Amino acid sequence: MTTRPDISTVKAALRTQAIETPSWAYGNSGTRFKVFAQPGVPRTPREKLDDAARVHQHTGAAPTVALHIPWDKCGSSGGYTELATYAEERGLRLGAINSNVFQDDDYKLGSVCNPDPAVRRKALDHLLECVDIMDATGSRDLKLWFSDGTNYPGQDDIRARQDRLGEALATVYERLGDHQRMLIEYKLFEPAFYTMDVPDWGTAYAHCLKLGEKAQVVVDTGHHAPGTNIEFIVSLLLREGKLGGFDFNSRFYADDDLMAGAADPFQLFRIMYEVVRGGGLDSGAAFMLDQCHNVEAKIPAIIRSVMNVQEATAKALLVDAGALGEAQAAGDVLAANAVLMDAYSTDVRPLLAEVREEAGIDPDPMAAYRRSGWAQKIVDERVGGTQSGWGA
Amino acid sequence: MTTRPDISTVKAALRTQAIETPSWAYGNSGTRFKVFAQPGVPRTPREKLDDAARVHQHTGAAPTVALHIPWDKCGSSGGYTELATYAEERGLRLGAINSNVFQDDDYKLGSVCNPDPAVRRKALDHLLECVDIMDATGSRDLKLWFSDGTNYPGQDDIRARQDRLGEALATVYERLGDHQRMLIEYKLFEPAFYTMDVPDWGTAYAHCLKLGEKAQVVVDTGHHAPGTNIEFIVSLLLREGKLGGFDFNSRFYADDDLMAGAADPFQLFRIMYEVVRGGGLDSGAAFMLDQCHNVEAKIPAIIRSVMNVQEATAKALLVDAGALGEAQAAGDVLAANAVLMDAYSTDVRPLLAEVREEAGIDPDPMAAYRRSGWAQKIVDERVGGTQSGWGA
Amino acid sequence: MTTRPDISTVKAALRTQAIETPSWAYGNSGTRFKVFAQPGVPRTPREKLDDAARVHQHTGAAPTVALHIPWDKCGSSGGYTELATYAEERGLRLGAINSNVFQDDDYKLGSVCNPDPAVRRKALDHLLECVDIMDATGSRDLKLWFSDGTNYPGQDDIRARQDRLGEALATVYERLGDHQRMLIEYKLFEPAFYTMDVPDWGTAYAHCLKLGEKAQVVVDTGHHAPGTNIEFIVSLLLREGKLGGFDFNSRFYADDDLMAGAADPFQLFRIMYEVVRGGGLDSGAAFMLDQCHNVEAKIPAIIRSVMNVQEATAKALLVDAGALGEAQAAGDVLAANAVLMDAYSTDVRPLLAEVREEAGIDPDPMAAYRRSGWAQKIVDERVGGTQSGWGA
Amino acid sequence: MTTRPDISTVKAALRTQAIETPSWAYGNSGTRFKVFAQPGVPRTPREKLDDAARVHQHTGAAPTVALHIPWDKCGSSGGYTELATYAEERGLRLGAINSNVFQDDDYKLGSVCNPDPAVRRKALDHLLECVDIMDATGSRDLKLWFSDGTNYPGQDDIRARQDRLGEALATVYERLGDHQRMLIEYKLFEPAFYTMDVPDWGTAYAHCLKLGEKAQVVVDTGHHAPGTNIEFIVSLLLREGKLGGFDFNSRFYADDDLMAGAADPFQLFRIMYEVVRGGGLDSGAAFMLDQCHNVEAKIPAIIRSVMNVQEATAKALLVDAGALGEAQAAGDVLAANAVLMDAYSTDVRPLLAEVREEAGIDPDPMAAYRRSGWAQKIVDERVGGTQSGWGA
Repeated sequence: MTTRPDISTVKAALRTQAIETPSWAYGNSGTRFKVFAQPGVPRTPREKLDDAARVHQHTGAAPTVALHIPWDKCGSSGGYTELATYAEERGLRLGAINSNVFQDDDYKLGSVCNPDPAVRRKALDHLLECVDIMDATGSRDLKLWFSDGTNYPGQDDIRARQDRLGEALATVYERLGDHQRMLIEYKLFEPAFYTMDVPDWGTAYAHCLKLGEKAQVVVDTGHHAPGTNIEFIVSLLLREGKLGGFDFNSRFYADDDLMAGAADPFQLFRIMYEVVRGGGLDSGAAFMLDQCHNVEAKIPAIIRSVMNVQEATAKALLVDAGALGEAQAAGDVLAANAVLMDAYSTDVRPLLAEVREEAGIDPDPMAAYRRSGWAQKIVDERVGGTQSGWGA
Repeated sequence: MTTRPDISTVKAALRTQAIETPSWAYGNSGTRFKVFAQPGVPRTPREKLDDAARVHQHTGAAPTVALHIPWDKCGSSGGYTELATYAEERGLRLGAINSNVFQDDDYKLGSVCNPDPAVRRKALDHLLECVDIMDATGSRDLKLWFSDGTNYPGQDDIRARQDRLGEALATVYERLGDHQRMLIEYKLFEPAFYTMDVPDWGTAYAHCLKLGEKAQVVVDTGHHAPGTNIEFIVSLLLREGKLGGFDFNSRFYADDDLMAGAADPFQLFRIMYEVVRGGGLDSGAAFMLDQCHNVEAKIPAIIRSVMNVQEATAKALLVDAGALGEAQAAGDVLAANAVLMDAYSTDVRPLLAEVREEAGIDPDPMAAYRRSGWAQKIVDERVGGTQSGWGA
Repeated sequence: MTTRPDISTVKAALRTQAIETPSWAYGNSGTRFKVFAQPGVPRTPREKLDDAARVHQHTGAAPTVALHIPWDKCGSSGGYTELATYAEERGLRLGAINSNVFQDDDYKLGSVCNPDPAVRRKALDHLLECVDIMDATGSRDLKLWFSDGTNYPGQDDIRARQDRLGEALATVYERLGDHQRMLIEYKLFEPAFYTMDVPDWGTAYAHCLKLGEKAQVVVDTGHHAPGTNIEFIVSLLLREGKLGGFDFNSRFYADDDLMAGAADPFQLFRIMYEVVRGGGLDSGAAFMLDQCHNVEAKIPAIIRSVMNVQEATAKALLVDAGALGEAQAAGDVLAANAVLMDAYSTDVRPLLAEVREEAGIDPDPMAAYRRSGWAQKIVDERVGGTQSGWGA
Repeated sequence: MTTRPDISTVKAALRTQAIETPSWAYGNSGTRFKVFAQPGVPRTPREKLDDAARVHQHTGAAPTVALHIPWDKCGSSGGYTELATYAEERGLRLGAINSNVFQDDDYKLGSVCNPDPAVRRKALDHLLECVDIMDATGSRDLKLWFSDGTNYPGQDDIRARQDRLGEALATVYERLGDHQRMLIEYKLFEPAFYTMDVPDWGTAYAHCLKLGEKAQVVVDTGHHAPGTNIEFIVSLLLREGKLGGFDFNSRFYADDDLMAGAADPFQLFRIMYEVVRGGGLDSGAAFMLDQCHNVEAKIPAIIRSVMNVQEATAKALLVDAGALGEAQAAGDVLAANAVLMDAYSTDVRPLLAEVREEAGIDPDPMAAYRRSGWAQKIVDERVGGTQSGWGA
């Protein structure tokens, strides 16, 4: 039995896949050792949207942009509405709102898990403000990542911190509108080194279960212990109806935040296969990038990342589900593996070039961007001011 | 504020701590490369109990013995009752029943998750038989570890395997008596190398939640990805009322199954601290050993392991909870860490020697065992027959 | 500048690439939990060669077979000569001789590093016997892997063990003939769990330096700590003239011994790129497989592994060295990465099919093997006797 | 045979142990997410020395301070001489000179391994300048850590980078005076994420061998892959005469840079045992701290770290070498392990208190520092100016 989807179905799926780019990836980033500033980097949220518009223009697949508060803070509620309009004028929409409760001096020992109730209150207020901003931007998703944790055994009470976390999440959850969701991100370590308060999918999942249907887990592909099988987690969360989405990036070691698919393209393919298998292309899961371009040019790195996700998705869509199911049912290990590998070994770049051409886009986004002159233009024009970065 | 428990309270807690030893640790074990047989190793379940009785005699802390089916299979239901009587006559009780659905040729592609329904049925029947055995032995806990998984991407449908797993667990759960529990164990890898069907605490927890109150998670300290913070998981499971117990052992790399506390005594202390902190000494959680003595003599290795758990527990009980809480509330990182480390740095061997002497036991279990002549006796007497091991 | 080698050069390189298959991969293997025997598995070294001949017949790329002593022990020196003749009659040659000093009861605490001089002597004698066998088989390479190590801190003197190791290696080195080499393998852990006496490439390299030019390092791709960059090591060893060869296999976790290229095909490509870059295709480095087929059929798994190495090599050969060098010199991170990824993304299966057809071989080795009926034939004919495996 | 060194010998060794503290640990540090500034942090090299003097005053064990160039840059050669005098007046000496070739914008793609020869030249000049500074300060050791590496496969030529590295090292080595040494540090990852140019001890060792006797390897305890046995490396380097020293710190995950001994005190003990065993206390190896105090007060954290190294050393010195050797020779795994663990389980705090009292120091350095009022004094007095940190 051969049930490889016909090419038109595959193309249709690829045409509708939307990958959200993060505003902060257009700005400067680095390691604790050094942030290497790049010429032409945006200085304002609007300039980030200008860059994001180029990514969407050349890929046709990046229609939304995630904001990070306060890095993309507008002065007023009206400011966000204007920003949303600015985005729309460039063919974009504003996406998830990412909270930041890790860069104020108060947060040294945590935000919503801090032993000091005053700090917890401050952090909670910020989260609630983010929901206000969602109302203004029309965003669906509130993405919550907490840097909370401890560096030394005994530093704080692990269990009490969970109580504090649960309390804060419940308050924010109550504030969500009918069509809004809360996405809880987990991370094994960094910036805290002994415990993180949400270190793994199980912890995020346990909190989501208590909160309700609008709370879901977000999988950052760089946030796991070595050896963790990420596609297994994806499969499980989809089965539980709890996969809120992805923060895509790749890593060789820890949270390297390299371009999606750069370190382990086979893993990205396996993840996308489980997404396809589990109905995740249509489940409302958000496909977001979250990466840092420390040594490479930012806009083309994001274009490349979008393309990498597309290629992994194309390969996943090409898996012959019927042949695979047959081999699996027969316990034929090699045949089943071969069906999967056949799709992975396929060069899908011509297929994606066709999809782009059919959508009126240049078949080679990287070349088109290079030719566009945008890279030089922003270097020339964005002079003075303060470049965007993690701290600004 | 100083609230270090007074010594009599600490001693009382140590006196009542019971550590279950596993029947299989008395038999031969090894790696895939070689099982080095040791002279004097038991040939029957009764001889394993004879050895276990020595461990309990010298430690006073190992009153129960876990069985492994079929390694400890008795011919009939009556056989288990007789084995239980045999144990009682030696001051022991039979503990958890451990199922084994990984050593029949049928199980090459899994047991309850196998694509073949006939194999699944066979595995399920074995699990149900284990509950029958529990009825005969009076055991409270059914410990379920599944070696199920896949070695290659595509080999089987990850999600369908979860469905099959859930179905089997539900059937076994229904069969449990009122005072019986099901403990679900998780393991990152080995013997399967691409996916394990229960790779992490989150997966075990999600199944337990669906099953009901009698299903709980068991934490094998060797079954995690590198860098995983195990005491965090322990704290979380206690908070959720889902910590069924431990399989203690230690490791430097993967599932090394070394003596508990041998590789990282500080980690064992931190785990026991979270147990004490979370009420786990009195919650019904089972403290079991699950280790392999590949190159060292088995009985004294088990005595040493029991002592290591006791020492970690003693140190955890000595933590000055009041001083710790104060330092934590004040955000004094170094002071809070120092309170914990003060307990850890304490040499608790004299305290445990006192506890033993007060209980009428030799203060030095290792020396007492050496002097007892048991090691030579079993070498002399256990001649012929087939030594117990993982395959027998 | 475009310097992608022309296709005929690439084809020529692929045509001459020889991958050595290990006799033991044709026999049974498993984990410490269970060895699942497979019907049709060879019972003698000759039957292993029969199977290896099929692999070479269908791939044209596996002309040599590594032996493992004592698993492939022949009664006498003449026996090896006869085995070599048997191989030649099937179009094969005997390859590396692999010593085994880990399966006798004496070796519980090590072989050449054992604290007991009598055991060390016994192990050394075995190693010297392996050189005798090399003389008889005409093998060039003696592959030395030591399972030696310790399980517990303090168990033995780490440094004294190095002294003992160095002494044994020097004695064996002296015994080597002019055209013979000693390949020293390293492994992070397993079967020893606290220390391995040759845990990393640095240790193997340090010993090789002292021994002389005939001693080189062999890289088993599954023997590294998580996160280790293997291609870096390969590049370094080639630069130092110390890369003796590979034991190819793949892994997700520890020493999983899965089919080469199965777990991380991109890594295998990166390794082969460094081999090509460093002249390793012509340096005398041995390309060996060392893997276990625990759940999959063995012969087709080996065929697949050979093909995976070929595909990785083909992609590595297709890298446009000129364009890559230009982008690297210009510091253009994205362009340089793109050149490499362009080769990796290429579907090289048609190219390899051509190479095979031009060599008069079926373009699809897996299908040809399936059609050949060999799988059924060995099941029918190899009845009775003792199947080969790690212990026999 | 009992050969535990008598207490007076142990005390003598402890009395002479010197631990070098790093100037930068007195300043601010953090993660890529945030640097939490602390009040009272030094603003100048002299203020760092003032703080270091307190550490030495209370511990008696921290007589030297490592400098980091340019963070401790003085305007002129005379400036360093004055700084040395300033140190001497406070009972201190200046220690190792640490180069910094990672924070200029030029170094985005590396320093001495950069594809651009002009950048390489600049980096080399800095290294040579560091030797000039050593001449002025009288420092023995030049510590070289290179952040050089690549983030993406293909980004640069791995092998060519080794050539460039070797060339730079050779030039610097030539410049060293008779009594000066070059210590080469290795690190698995961060800030580069695909390759580091000196990722492991083997690479550092290979370069040292080529350079000559004055080049040695420095072991930063946080710079290894998960599961690496660091004490094995220490033992090996001592055996090869190539252990230049340590950068002590501890970690749970990656390069956490927590206080030495905080994450795994047993590991620190095992390392110090191999140091003692291998003669490393008298070999000229430098015992340096290299850690970051992101959330805890800096001076007491350094005092605690010094004490942790002392405690590990004391335990290592207490190992009964005779009993250990006997048990090892007899192959008695449990007895040998027990000898080591007996020393580890000992509470050595009273012993160290005695050593301090005998040296005229307060037996409790932490309490003495707390009572001294220094913490408040520096908060009050160090107002204005720019706090020291990694970037200043």
